[in-house]
Amino acid sequence: MLSRKMKIAALCALVIIVMAFAMPAGAQSRREIKIPDVPGYRVLKFDLHMHTVFSDGKVWPTIRVQEAWREGLDGISITDHIEYVPFKKDIPVNYNRPYEIALPEAEKLGILLIRGAEITREMPPGHINALFLEDVDKLNTEKWDDAVKAAFDQKAFIFWNHPGWKGQQPDGKSRWYDEHTIMLEKGWMHGIEMVNEFEYYADAHQWSLEKIRTMVGNSDVHDPIAMAYDPVKGEHRPLTLILAKEKTLESVKEALFAGRTVVYWKNDLMGKAEHLSPIFNQSVAIEKTTVEIKPKGRAYFQIRNISEIEYELELAGSVADFDAPKTLTIPAERTVVFYLRSLKEDAKGQVKPDLPYVVKNLKTAPDAGLPVTFPVTVNFIAAE
Amino acid sequence: MLSRKMKIAALCALVIIVMAFAMPAGAQSRREIKIPDVPGYRVLKFDLHMHTVFSDGKVWPTIRVQEAWREGLDGISITDHIEYVPFKKDIPVNYNRPYEIALPEAEKLGILLIRGAEITREMPPGHINALFLEDVDKLNTEKWDDAVKAAFDQKAFIFWNHPGWKGQQPDGKSRWYDEHTIMLEKGWMHGIEMVNEFEYYADAHQWSLEKIRTMVGNSDVHDPIAMAYDPVKGEHRPLTLILAKEKTLESVKEALFAGRTVVYWKNDLMGKAEHLSPIFNQSVAIEKTTVEIKPKGRAYFQIRNISEIEYELELAGSVADFDAPKTLTIPAERTVVFYLRSLKEDAKGQVKPDLPYVVKNLKTAPDAGLPVTFPVTVNFIAAE
Amino acid sequence: MLSRKMKIAALCALVIIVMAFAMPAGAQSRREIKIPDVPGYRVLKFDLHMHTVFSDGKVWPTIRVQEAWREGLDGISITDHIEYVPFKKDIPVNYNRPYEIALPEAEKLGILLIRGAEITREMPPGHINALFLEDVDKLNTEKWDDAVKAAFDQKAFIFWNHPGWKGQQPDGKSRWYDEHTIMLEKGWMHGIEMVNEFEYYADAHQWSLEKIRTMVGNSDVHDPIAMAYDPVKGEHRPLTLILAKEKTLESVKEALFAGRTVVYWKNDLMGKAEHLSPIFNQSVAIEKTTVEIKPKGRAYFQIRNISEIEYELELAGSVADFDAPKTLTIPAERTVVFYLRSLKEDAKGQVKPDLPYVVKNLKTAPDAGLPVTFPVTVNFIAAE
Amino acid sequence: MLSRKMKIAALCALVIIVMAFAMPAGAQSRREIKIPDVPGYRVLKFDLHMHTVFSDGKVWPTIRVQEAWREGLDGISITDHIEYVPFKKDIPVNYNRPYEIALPEAEKLGILLIRGAEITREMPPGHINALFLEDVDKLNTEKWDDAVKAAFDQKAFIFWNHPGWKGQQPDGKSRWYDEHTIMLEKGWMHGIEMVNEFEYYADAHQWSLEKIRTMVGNSDVHDPIAMAYDPVKGEHRPLTLILAKEKTLESVKEALFAGRTVVYWKNDLMGKAEHLSPIFNQSVAIEKTTVEIKPKGRAYFQIRNISEIEYELELAGSVADFDAPKTLTIPAERTVVFYLRSLKEDAKGQVKPDLPYVVKNLKTAPDAGLPVTFPVTVNFIAAE
Repeated sequence: MLSRKMKIAALCALVIIVMAFAMPAGAQSRREIKIPDVPGYRVLKFDLHMHTVFSDGKVWPTIRVQEAWREGLDGISITDHIEYVPFKKDIPVNYNRPYEIALPEAEKLGILLIRGAEITREMPPGHINALFLEDVDKLNTEKWDDAVKAAFDQKAFIFWNHPGWKGQQPDGKSRWYDEHTIMLEKGWMHGIEMVNEFEYYADAHQWSLEKIRTMVGNSDVHDPIAMAYDPVKGEHRPLTLILAKEKTLESVKEALFAGRTVVYWKNDLMGKAEHLSPIFNQSVAIEKTTVEIKPKGRAYFQIRNISEIEYELELAGSVADFDAPKTLTIPAERTVVFYLRSLKEDAKGQVKPDLPYVVKNLKTAPDAGLPVTFPVTVNFIAAE
Repeated sequence: MLSRKMKIAALCALVIIVMAFAMPAGAQSRREIKIPDVPGYRVLKFDLHMHTVFSDGKVWPTIRVQEAWREGLDGISITDHIEYVPFKKDIPVNYNRPYEIALPEAEKLGILLIRGAEITREMPPGHINALFLEDVDKLNTEKWDDAVKAAFDQKAFIFWNHPGWKGQQPDGKSRWYDEHTIMLEKGWMHGIEMVNEFEYYADAHQWSLEKIRTMVGNSDVHDPIAMAYDPVKGEHRPLTLILAKEKTLESVKEALFAGRTVVYWKNDLMGKAEHLSPIFNQSVAIEKTTVEIKPKGRAYFQIRNISEIEYELELAGSVADFDAPKTLTIPAERTVVFYLRSLKEDAKGQVKPDLPYVVKNLKTAPDAGLPVTFPVTVNFIAAE
Repeated sequence: MLSRKMKIAALCALVIIVMAFAMPAGAQSRREIKIPDVPGYRVLKFDLHMHTVFSDGKVWPTIRVQEAWREGLDGISITDHIEYVPFKKDIPVNYNRPYEIALPEAEKLGILLIRGAEITREMPPGHINALFLEDVDKLNTEKWDDAVKAAFDQKAFIFWNHPGWKGQQPDGKSRWYDEHTIMLEKGWMHGIEMVNEFEYYADAHQWSLEKIRTMVGNSDVHDPIAMAYDPVKGEHRPLTLILAKEKTLESVKEALFAGRTVVYWKNDLMGKAEHLSPIFNQSVAIEKTTVEIKPKGRAYFQIRNISEIEYELELAGSVADFDAPKTLTIPAERTVVFYLRSLKEDAKGQVKPDLPYVVKNLKTAPDAGLPVTFPVTVNFIAAE
Repeated sequence: MLSRKMKIAALCALVIIVMAFAMPAGAQSRREIKIPDVPGYRVLKFDLHMHTVFSDGKVWPTIRVQEAWREGLDGISITDHIEYVPFKKDIPVNYNRPYEIALPEAEKLGILLIRGAEITREMPPGHINALFLEDVDKLNTEKWDDAVKAAFDQKAFIFWNHPGWKGQQPDGKSRWYDEHTIMLEKGWMHGIEMVNEFEYYADAHQWSLEKIRTMVGNSDVHDPIAMAYDPVKGEHRPLTLILAKEKTLESVKEALFAGRTVVYWKNDLMGKAEHLSPIFNQSVAIEKTTVEIKPKGRAYFQIRNISEIEYELELAGSVADFDAPKTLTIPAERTVVFYLRSLKEDAKGQVKPDLPYVVKNLKTAPDAGLPVTFPVTVNFIAAE
């Protein structure tokens, strides 16, 4: 006869097997994030900052992987706090466990998992994320700079989190302290989190343009993701888009250190023009580029947007002899129609005006949109 | 100068305060479940079966309370497994902790929290939930009947979980064993779970009509609730509706022992006719009950449904001298229009036909809908 | 043998009968607009400006009734243009036909139908709607003032349409001309349309406060309604809410002349404080009004909003000895939780602070929200 | 001084110009139908049966074009009734007008517009659509066969509409009469409408396999499209997918006569296997086709579906040495994960099982799904 222990063990094995089978297929589906790849690079979708019950998050580590897979992410880093472990009475501190627990699920689902941690200090220097760690335990030090150095010594990618977080800067203003200068000078600050959850830090955005190579934007999620971002309203978490040569951890690390990132927050993409331009160009296409019109007539064009970003364009200059729309909104995954009106009575032959716009929600700086040009071709025909 | 420990403690306090303030109001909103109260009773919405990281669930106990509040529930019971504790390597076993951790959140949000547990044995007798416990530890016994007795001795409300669960009955068939006869005879089985997650057990439904006083239906949720039931599709977890005199734990316990429950699963309500009838009557109203028509003409009526249940009606008999719709679907929170056609050429005066229907998705037994009658009044006027 | 004509007639009769039966019940359902009635008045939902194929609209008149019924309106006025009839080559002009065609459908569905028309002149005086006409033909006059007088002589309710419409005021600015003074002085201008389709006219709003009794806001819809307001995004047409004693045309007319209206546009209600206040009070309720807290502790409250308006509140003053939320958003058909924090260390006994807020989207003037007060009760208990 | 007429004319011109400009860009957007093209053919989306106010429809002809453009269609045919013109009292009969009115809008928006009409007779032969007409007037004849011959003489594509329509066959059963044999023998029946609005005719489906070259499925819409198919629920009208060499009317006509069509109804595609197979193959892809597993382990695969069809697969045979999922649901525009379980203890090396499924909602006959095979590659590694 089986002992009680053995019976329970057998039962547990059965339970585990059955539960895996019982998983409803419908619930287990992944929606791709519709932001296209660009020439030369995959545009990988990452969230580089999140928590589990191993610090002050509210979910088991495997959930972070499953959430990421469902939402169309390519990878994540679980970055539990080192210094702030409020559930330690119930869950003994074990810094490397979240990664270890989440890894098999990540391998099963094809999610790239980066071993990370959040150094959690008073401001300055505040909170700091370290990714690609080998041993998180080494970051548990008395002094903040020893912790950062321990990350640096593991060749980690290190970024300053939420510089203007109201938890440490009640007025919401980001401030640069001596400690940050030290980090920068020692090569300890590779990136800066200019978007965290529902906050955007314009100063951090500016600093990234001036002195910090890599912009990141992350969810810092603690609750189940659907409690923080309402799927019914179509809300999404902030993401760091990484322009990587391929979908591997090595490629991702190379791209992060090289600064090939774009922050995706609400309906904005923020990054360098060289990265935003190809994303826009791969997203939209003018469907008819040659039309015949009469002088003083109208030429109709259609623009199709295959991405999930709604592009908001503003006319940035004038178009000789034509009246062009002052603003153009191209909704996500939709096609819109607009027209040019010819202003010249004796227009004839073929004309190829360039339409100059600025895409307001593709931001190359806190207050600057991305300039783009649509080349179109118009063939005039004689008026009846 | 502060020690590092004190600094961290101060930091933590700050973090906690700020996080509470930073909670976005929008994300923290509750949607009421639109199933109306009935004369004499509140219709309280409960989920009596769910898990946390303290057994094999994937969320922290406070999440279960927040999910319940958001979804419009009045109360829950967290029922972690006694015998199956797969995370014990990371989270030492502590049966009473989920309740202790969740209670302050429940008090803050006005959610009734029942201390519960799941006795998790091989079939027979399978899994058994015990609610209103005083000390869960006492249920950790060698033999299954000692565990159930320990619950009974604490005056717990005890029900048999998912009798046909594929994890224990691979063919999905519910089977009644001697152990269940023993439980019934000793007064240890007050209820039966005829709906669990995505499964409905018709045999359990039938047994409840014959010999078990109280029907329950629950989610048995392990993941964050929005991973199991897609809010975008409007899916909801199974619920036990409890017809209680007031919204207190005492009232809920009284109602459970008295068998005043209705199971809400997908678009079905299952229970006794005496409980389903008033819910239907409080949900729908004929908006116009008197109309003037010509002989062989049509009389139009509107029916408004204020509940979130879509009612599916089928004509159950004939209406003398009138042609009435064979089927009527009254969508959730909508009004529909239909007409009676008079078949009699010399109709005159006032006629008050009763329209006999069966509500197919209000189930009084596995294959029986609830009979209802609409009284309407028609006044004939002379044909022009 | 039947002639071809008779056969066709028989066929047509059959087709009509069958089509009526074949109408899918689900598609024919009505959603109520969730803005509650107020003490003494029904809050009726009207759209007083719309078009059909009998002027430049794109739908048959019955469609306007069906759209209204589905969207939860209580009544409409079809107001086709008198002077602008672009389809007259295909549809001979017949000003009274839209009403005649729509009336049987309105009676069937219980929609109040007002016979109306739009006097369509150059600015000044621009476009003018006249409601409750007896004979629309009489408004077809050479001079604009004869047309308005013809309406006035039929005791019509007359209002100035879209004063700042870009079709007549390309800069979008409303301008008051002598013609409007004439109309006002002769008693020919009972109302002013401060919202039309996607435009809001702040000047018109101001004029209505100063000299024009009745505010109206309407869709002026030409296309099928779902082409103009996207149901997937939950958009709704502008409406004139009419506080009428009962749901009859007489009551509606009395209320319009008495100025008991509120304009519902996007998420704003605009009207007089005496009408907005009871709507707010019937919409929201504080669910817990008495709580026990410790000195320097927190008291939690829940506010439930049964209306479809999302209320946006801003603290308008301070609350002695308490810290109250600066802003409160109460989403449509949701409950939110918030807390007061006691600031006094030696607080004791019962305290009844009044919480002073302004509801920003209930507008009593172009830049003024509605002041409201929440009375709450707090009972202090001794700190442990 | 301008005469009144001239003033009105000037006003009208202004109104027209302004209205065109005022058209909100957001409302004017097009959603593509996500059913991919196949090797050699565009998969064009057509609705070949609909009505306007010129027979018994409820909208102006331009609306049919705009609705089609918004919903992602490539083309339509407006097919107003010849014999049934209930609005003729208000709109004098003019059979060619709907096409003439709709054409400029179609050219502007790039919608292919086919001149069509519906011959509307008693059963037999019932209703018959004729497309690619040159002059609709010629179909207005005393006898039904003269009308069909008039269409045939114009080289029209002719199909029998809704053979089992309850308006003519109250029991919903399709019946084949001598008149249909005549049509078939004379070459007057090129297609059959096996789906009309909410009805599917299995007999018509069977006849199309046996003797009628082309299957069509259409909306027969009379109301504004969003009143018939609820966009909030994601409903879509029935469509005829046409596999054409290019997007031109000539190509469409060639494809219709050649029988290269697929009917898209609810979540079903119905057609010949040679057309359904490439659509499925272009829609789905297995994302990982090579994996390493241990003997008796699991190999995980992901399948991505880029189409808007939810594919429902059923295992159609067994897979040697592996346990494969009995059913697979691949939701629209989603990726799902599934696993094979190896059943062999001594498995080693590379194995390439074929997974045989039937796609239940790709129908090659009323009761037959499309057989498909997934080739996968599994590499065994030694067990630890």
